[in-house]
Amino acid sequence: MEGHSLAILSQIFIMFAAAKLLAVVGERYKIPAVISEILAGILIGPSLLGLVHPEEWTMALAGLGAIILLFDVGLDQKLTDLMKVGWTVLLVASLGVVVPFFLGYGLLALLEHSTTESIFMGAAMVATSVGITARVLQELGVLKTVVATVILGAAVIDDIFGMIVLAVVSGLREGVNYAQIISVAGMAVGFTLFIVLVGGRVMRRVTPRVRGFAVGDPYFPLALVICLGLAVAAEKIGIAAIVGAFLAGLVFSEEELTPGLKDKIHALYEFLVPFFFVTMGMQMDVRVLGQRQILLLAALVTVLAILGKLVGCGLGAYRMGWRAATQVGVGMVPRGEVGIIVASIGLGLGTISDEIYAVVIIMVLATTLLAPPALKVLFSPRVEPAPANPPSDLL
Amino acid sequence: MEGHSLAILSQIFIMFAAAKLLAVVGERYKIPAVISEILAGILIGPSLLGLVHPEEWTMALAGLGAIILLFDVGLDQKLTDLMKVGWTVLLVASLGVVVPFFLGYGLLALLEHSTTESIFMGAAMVATSVGITARVLQELGVLKTVVATVILGAAVIDDIFGMIVLAVVSGLREGVNYAQIISVAGMAVGFTLFIVLVGGRVMRRVTPRVRGFAVGDPYFPLALVICLGLAVAAEKIGIAAIVGAFLAGLVFSEEELTPGLKDKIHALYEFLVPFFFVTMGMQMDVRVLGQRQILLLAALVTVLAILGKLVGCGLGAYRMGWRAATQVGVGMVPRGEVGIIVASIGLGLGTISDEIYAVVIIMVLATTLLAPPALKVLFSPRVEPAPANPPSDLL
Repeated sequence: MEGHSLAILSQIFIMFAAAKLLAVVGERYKIPAVISEILAGILIGPSLLGLVHPEEWTMALAGLGAIILLFDVGLDQKLTDLMKVGWTVLLVASLGVVVPFFLGYGLLALLEHSTTESIFMGAAMVATSVGITARVLQELGVLKTVVATVILGAAVIDDIFGMIVLAVVSGLREGVNYAQIISVAGMAVGFTLFIVLVGGRVMRRVTPRVRGFAVGDPYFPLALVICLGLAVAAEKIGIAAIVGAFLAGLVFSEEELTPGLKDKIHALYEFLVPFFFVTMGMQMDVRVLGQRQILLLAALVTVLAILGKLVGCGLGAYRMGWRAATQVGVGMVPRGEVGIIVASIGLGLGTISDEIYAVVIIMVLATTLLAPPALKVLFSPRVEPAPANPPSDLL
Repeated sequence: MEGHSLAILSQIFIMFAAAKLLAVVGERYKIPAVISEILAGILIGPSLLGLVHPEEWTMALAGLGAIILLFDVGLDQKLTDLMKVGWTVLLVASLGVVVPFFLGYGLLALLEHSTTESIFMGAAMVATSVGITARVLQELGVLKTVVATVILGAAVIDDIFGMIVLAVVSGLREGVNYAQIISVAGMAVGFTLFIVLVGGRVMRRVTPRVRGFAVGDPYFPLALVICLGLAVAAEKIGIAAIVGAFLAGLVFSEEELTPGLKDKIHALYEFLVPFFFVTMGMQMDVRVLGQRQILLLAALVTVLAILGKLVGCGLGAYRMGWRAATQVGVGMVPRGEVGIIVASIGLGLGTISDEIYAVVIIMVLATTLLAPPALKVLFSPRVEPAPANPPSDLL
């Protein structure tokens, strides 16, 4: 409230207004809001206009944004639907995680970066950002096709794999130690299974009792307390906070149990999530783009990020015919929030450099911008429709 | 996201969970959430459990909470209704501002506190917290009575007077200078009139054009940008940020223009506002309660705070008969957020001491706790009903 608070308040205003302004302008050119908000952060951040600087309070706001973002992603998955996923979807998701990971890891290892940095690069290339693809498929009116079902299903599994990879790499605080990787992986998988299996049941028992306990809507505060609580718990056991927030979202994903929750979380989302992407953009030092080597590396990483999903997911979907497999592969190309979070954790731990952080941001921006037009071409009516060759386990 | 972020995240969790837990428990005993959240802050703050300390990021979150709180208060006022307020309401509101101000100012001046500190005390005693009274009147089923209309109308005017007083005192950065008071008052009144008169018209022109401009709901981001922008503007011209937020709320208060906005702001409210009250509680040093002098002063201030509204507002409503006048006076007794904000601004500027801050917090807690039971007695059916003697300008 005092003198210094004017500076903070002005910066909050600048961050939010820049994010929303660029998002509105970007929308006219079909640029996803994620991209616009990251660009807003790059623009107002220290390496360009210098209006806002990453500080403790920006990181606190951005952290809250990331937690609400991943809680919302979790809310969108239905636990019961997840159980029904077919083998094709599982194969698409698994290969789509394994191939990009080893391409990213391999490239940096080949270029003699440290093992930890190489692992972070691999991890940042894993998770598909399903939101962008889903919106494009919706605009094209093909959300009900088999290809869309496979893409969306695989992206969900992919998110969970991505969280496990993130949990493991965020445990890599001091160098790489295989025993530690295995123990963190065990912890992450155990935590996930525990929350998913026990949490869903507890919710089904608890929610009817909570109703009427408090005046107004009791679910929203309850959900927020559990979301923040699981985020803290995840960090305490050595995995990323957002993994906890994501799992909390999964637990609350049965909409019938908590009516109205999604709308309220979405209001929070609209306010807080821009601070996350803007801060992520602010952390990018555009001066590294002056270095030809970095640009070259960014281009290579982007190509590998695209190839990784195209080949990995395409292979997973090969039984659907080559055109459908290509559509699935391209649909899985956009990376988003999770890749950026992986990179920012690496940056925070000091295990990845400013240069590699910039490379990840460029890769995320490029894959997210390239996938939508490619999808439109692949689904365009002039192109012969994909042969109706759905894998047997989806019938 | 790095090491230190675990500490921040844990503290965010503790603040939010403590606030909601105490609010749920308090609700069982009809204690308003404001009180429970302040008590939660006192409990977890440095002077008791020491789990959380006021830091830059807590102040940033609390500041956002205060802004959303006052935006929401503004949203609840209807500009068009304000214009129709009768003379009785205006008199109740004016005397209810003037009398408590001079009682608070006079007491501290008499006790030889500095003029600035005395003015802050007077200012902290001005604004009625209408939410608590409104809820009690609703529970008693008397919201549609003339007394309730007068109370709610006066509380609205009172809020605006309170904002002007706040604007003036927050300009008192270096001692008291009557020329400066007049200039800040002029600025505050001018800013208020400008926003209220021009803002409403602009909104009525702009909102239909905004519709359909952005995908999804364009009003919520627009409202937030304007709310933050006016808060910054208010601070820049030397008045409190929340005055700007309140005026932004007034501008957006015509619900038909921005459907769904209130629900979304309310979701933000539920998440952010607890951080404000918890932080306000954290800032209270309970050790000052060990000093008999402070307790005595707090008791005196509380009595004057109650008498101020009872006499001031009662006088304003005298034409309605003594029982109705008493009901109006008691209904205006609870102080709340604005009083606390005034005190915290004074604390931040260093113009009021920790002791006076504690006195204000106690006064707010006491008036807010005492008014509801008193209202219930005054409205109880065993008591002879207030003679239907409505002032002519309300007919």
